[in-house]
Amino acid sequence: MRKIIIDTDPGIDDAAALALAVFSKELDVQLITTVAGNVGLDKTTYNALRMVSLWDARIPVAAGAARPLSGPVYDAAEAHGESGMDGFTFDAVTARTVPMHAVEAMRRVLMRSEEKITLVPIGPLTNIALLFSTYPEVKEKIDEIVLMGGAFLRGNITPMAEFNIFADPEAADIVFKSGLPLVMCGLELAQMATITGAMVGALREKNPTARMVCDLFEHYRGGDLENGMRMYDSTAICYLLAPELYTTKDCFIGIETASPLTRGMTVCDLEGFWGREPNGKVCTAVDPEGFRRLFLEGLENASGAPENPTAAMWLYDC
Amino acid sequence: MRKIIIDTDPGIDDAAALALAVFSKELDVQLITTVAGNVGLDKTTYNALRMVSLWDARIPVAAGAARPLSGPVYDAAEAHGESGMDGFTFDAVTARTVPMHAVEAMRRVLMRSEEKITLVPIGPLTNIALLFSTYPEVKEKIDEIVLMGGAFLRGNITPMAEFNIFADPEAADIVFKSGLPLVMCGLELAQMATITGAMVGALREKNPTARMVCDLFEHYRGGDLENGMRMYDSTAICYLLAPELYTTKDCFIGIETASPLTRGMTVCDLEGFWGREPNGKVCTAVDPEGFRRLFLEGLENASGAPENPTAAMWLYDC
Amino acid sequence: MRKIIIDTDPGIDDAAALALAVFSKELDVQLITTVAGNVGLDKTTYNALRMVSLWDARIPVAAGAARPLSGPVYDAAEAHGESGMDGFTFDAVTARTVPMHAVEAMRRVLMRSEEKITLVPIGPLTNIALLFSTYPEVKEKIDEIVLMGGAFLRGNITPMAEFNIFADPEAADIVFKSGLPLVMCGLELAQMATITGAMVGALREKNPTARMVCDLFEHYRGGDLENGMRMYDSTAICYLLAPELYTTKDCFIGIETASPLTRGMTVCDLEGFWGREPNGKVCTAVDPEGFRRLFLEGLENASGAPENPTAAMWLYDC
Amino acid sequence: MRKIIIDTDPGIDDAAALALAVFSKELDVQLITTVAGNVGLDKTTYNALRMVSLWDARIPVAAGAARPLSGPVYDAAEAHGESGMDGFTFDAVTARTVPMHAVEAMRRVLMRSEEKITLVPIGPLTNIALLFSTYPEVKEKIDEIVLMGGAFLRGNITPMAEFNIFADPEAADIVFKSGLPLVMCGLELAQMATITGAMVGALREKNPTARMVCDLFEHYRGGDLENGMRMYDSTAICYLLAPELYTTKDCFIGIETASPLTRGMTVCDLEGFWGREPNGKVCTAVDPEGFRRLFLEGLENASGAPENPTAAMWLYDC
Repeated sequence: MRKIIIDTDPGIDDAAALALAVFSKELDVQLITTVAGNVGLDKTTYNALRMVSLWDARIPVAAGAARPLSGPVYDAAEAHGESGMDGFTFDAVTARTVPMHAVEAMRRVLMRSEEKITLVPIGPLTNIALLFSTYPEVKEKIDEIVLMGGAFLRGNITPMAEFNIFADPEAADIVFKSGLPLVMCGLELAQMATITGAMVGALREKNPTARMVCDLFEHYRGGDLENGMRMYDSTAICYLLAPELYTTKDCFIGIETASPLTRGMTVCDLEGFWGREPNGKVCTAVDPEGFRRLFLEGLENASGAPENPTAAMWLYDC
Repeated sequence: MRKIIIDTDPGIDDAAALALAVFSKELDVQLITTVAGNVGLDKTTYNALRMVSLWDARIPVAAGAARPLSGPVYDAAEAHGESGMDGFTFDAVTARTVPMHAVEAMRRVLMRSEEKITLVPIGPLTNIALLFSTYPEVKEKIDEIVLMGGAFLRGNITPMAEFNIFADPEAADIVFKSGLPLVMCGLELAQMATITGAMVGALREKNPTARMVCDLFEHYRGGDLENGMRMYDSTAICYLLAPELYTTKDCFIGIETASPLTRGMTVCDLEGFWGREPNGKVCTAVDPEGFRRLFLEGLENASGAPENPTAAMWLYDC
Repeated sequence: MRKIIIDTDPGIDDAAALALAVFSKELDVQLITTVAGNVGLDKTTYNALRMVSLWDARIPVAAGAARPLSGPVYDAAEAHGESGMDGFTFDAVTARTVPMHAVEAMRRVLMRSEEKITLVPIGPLTNIALLFSTYPEVKEKIDEIVLMGGAFLRGNITPMAEFNIFADPEAADIVFKSGLPLVMCGLELAQMATITGAMVGALREKNPTARMVCDLFEHYRGGDLENGMRMYDSTAICYLLAPELYTTKDCFIGIETASPLTRGMTVCDLEGFWGREPNGKVCTAVDPEGFRRLFLEGLENASGAPENPTAAMWLYDC
Repeated sequence: MRKIIIDTDPGIDDAAALALAVFSKELDVQLITTVAGNVGLDKTTYNALRMVSLWDARIPVAAGAARPLSGPVYDAAEAHGESGMDGFTFDAVTARTVPMHAVEAMRRVLMRSEEKITLVPIGPLTNIALLFSTYPEVKEKIDEIVLMGGAFLRGNITPMAEFNIFADPEAADIVFKSGLPLVMCGLELAQMATITGAMVGALREKNPTARMVCDLFEHYRGGDLENGMRMYDSTAICYLLAPELYTTKDCFIGIETASPLTRGMTVCDLEGFWGREPNGKVCTAVDPEGFRRLFLEGLENASGAPENPTAAMWLYDC
């Protein structure tokens, strides 16, 4: 099983992505860390705990940064609802966070691991940037960063910037310059990675997770599920499971931090205009059928006790 | 007939665009001005004179700026060949330039005209910026600016910048902030506005202009004309002739001048993220069939003496 | 006599500087051009004409740019009074402007001259930038640019920017990159180049020019002339007359155009941190006694008909 | 006694500043943290340990960031010598670092303290930025930040930037925007805060610390101590001891991160041009005699066992 740490700001489509990862037989989720993003940190952390409780998953949750490194806080509560996960009634939350910051939790998990671990950030990159800046020694324990964020065409929060990167461009700059192998699953993928209401509706009675996803989706978009919802964050999880479904291009990716017009852009030199050393792999396409199959299978199988055998539950005893 | 001034840096696809405009029965070309761009100013000017001579057109030519306002000179000679128009043997050049700078020529033509005139810049915007900065009073005589330049997706000279804007971003900034009605025919249009070798080949024997276009195209791309060449500059001319073929969006367009990563971008707020006052109309699509029909008809009819009844030939006597 | 063109935005201390230049036996003023700056173009032009009329000087005046190349118009009317020259009653204005733009007038004067001419810009650099961008061939006719503008310590319109440069940083960038010999008389000089009310008061009855300067000064600062007024623009004129009074340093000078915090700065690498090729001479000090002597002698002698033997009065006949 | 944490990159003048603080009867040094700056982190940490060992001081040392948040590493080894403290032979180093990162050590000391503590950063601000970004809750335990860094006139590493800020502008931006009371002791102070070789020479035999300072100074500047060495970092310590010696101005201070020409500047709006809310107190002058008295008294008394009664020695047991 591939060991991963998920850094997330749930958020509706984060919920689906977490479900895929946590229940996957191929992924061994070590730790879930939370960050401010779609909604504030208190809510993203609470949402993570709600899901871990729902699943009765033995995976630790650590709360991280409540604000970007610099610049104001943006959130996407308008899109994600007041709580970030409106529309589904969760049972009592039994899980709790570990008694340390997400950065500290990641450091401990990474430094104790004998195998390399993959980082899967699907929110703003603040925690990851703080981790690398404070504890650069962890880089040796990281296999790869597979993130949801950025765009090579246009944006979704300003004309040219994607939300996760725009929410903390300085952090993104640190992460994209880290020197580690990095895979960028950007906005364009999600246009091909759509799931309709009918598709998830067919799975609704299979298990509580499928029901949760159905309810969140319905609340989010109401009856307009016909054209499909874009599964942004799940594109990063599915890349871990089936990279062969993706078309990728190694290239230089620059993060714009300075200009007001273009702040938060991921400038991807796909054509090699600049001849600069590649620092990441941009996913330019995903096979829609393959993605849907993986996604729906994952949701169908999201029942019973999820197995993440080496999850760092020992963090609760620190 | 609609009075226009064409500011150009020929260049191969400029040649086709000029042919369409000069021979059109609906356009009354007052003046052709030249600017450095695809190749240096000496060559763009010479190429303009070569075409005017070939057509025996009574249209004045004025040479303009040899360098951008700021920053280094870029050219596209690699794409356009040494002379900018390799591949066709022109007859002797009989035309000459008017004895004044393009800016001065434009000023005179505009100030003397009783009707408003449309500016059609299809190269870097240096001349137009100098005109507006030196003689802001001309703005009252300008109907509209219909330009080829910019992009709302990606670039062709850096990852995100189109050549004409990148070649002089400071000038573009002045023009896009001019307050005049402005139509931006950007890179994306040209992907829909393609002409194959077979299409122009069928017209080859119709007239010398068609022959010139055929020869330039063949030299430019060799045998690889099957997929079609992108007629960048002709999209601006066809917009004048048939705007109904174009899908457009009024929006704020910002020109990036500061950041090295994104210098020369036209940031088009098509979705209205910023709620800023529109300063231009972005053409997001053109009907490919309609474009091809117009283009090929124009080329077919490009014979005999072109009529531009009120062209400013009096400039030669100043 | 040294041939000069003065580009100016009068403005009170411009008036004193013009008087020094126009009446100097060593300077042959070819042309006075005006630009928006301390007050709007209409007023700076009218003020130039008022002085030329007062002096009955045979020097042509040409009006130039009313706005900076890019960005908003700033003026300093708060400091310079509504008209820019409140406090003195001028006689009827008999002079008029030449029938062409300042840029065109400068071009003609320069291109017709057999000797090289020195440019003396003491306002924002818009006209000079337009001249160089439109007619780069004039550079061969320019000996040197001696300008008032910039600072190497702190600013007077923002914390770090001096007014003339801040008013049009894009133009300044063009001028400082022109490749011509350039002398920067910045803000710091004026702290050493001060004139008290008593000093000019002693000359008040000598001639109408001295009276004008006295009245403008008194109005400007009221009774608070004891500590001396800073003669910004006159530092550029005195440099022409007695460069040996100045301490200078050849160095790289960069113009900041991008950053909101530092826009309009003249970053002077006096210590050579960057090892870049010098593009100007920064005046770091002026001998205060020497300056005052020159200034007061100049004012004392500012009577009778000023002689500027080769002034371009022929421009009125163009 | 005032509780302080010193964040430092020794470095020669850091050594003197540390001596003043550690031996002061008015300051209770809780913790010394180290950061890369004058020389690399290994060396700054080793130098801190060398001094703590020399003094037999019971003050914990924690090593922090080895690199700035973003951008390349600069160091000043050329000025500070290979080791950062060449010229004095230290005894065996008996002290060691606490088993955690400087950020973690600061967090623990701050969160456990009942009184507020003053932060005294005299190197690049990387550690402090990481502390605030990771653990914003510590801000409630901080009284004030008194730092050595920045300039309001000119720089010492680029024309306009001071070394400590230039070495990590992104970190400085975070710290200056922290909302905490902040005192900036910049470059200009040090021109007034000079110590000659004769002054320290007279104290040489008083104690080992004085001898160390003498030897470091002599090695640093050789025989050229007549004009005095600038005691940059000691200006921050003396501000803690005698703020009445300082002239200060509350104002807005912006950190330039974007522009290549001005990166690392502290733009201090001393005159209030912008009317923005002050975020710091800029020290514009210090009484030279008062400074020297404090400095030399401090050095004279730097003998025996330094008393820092509540220093966080318990960190060694964590």
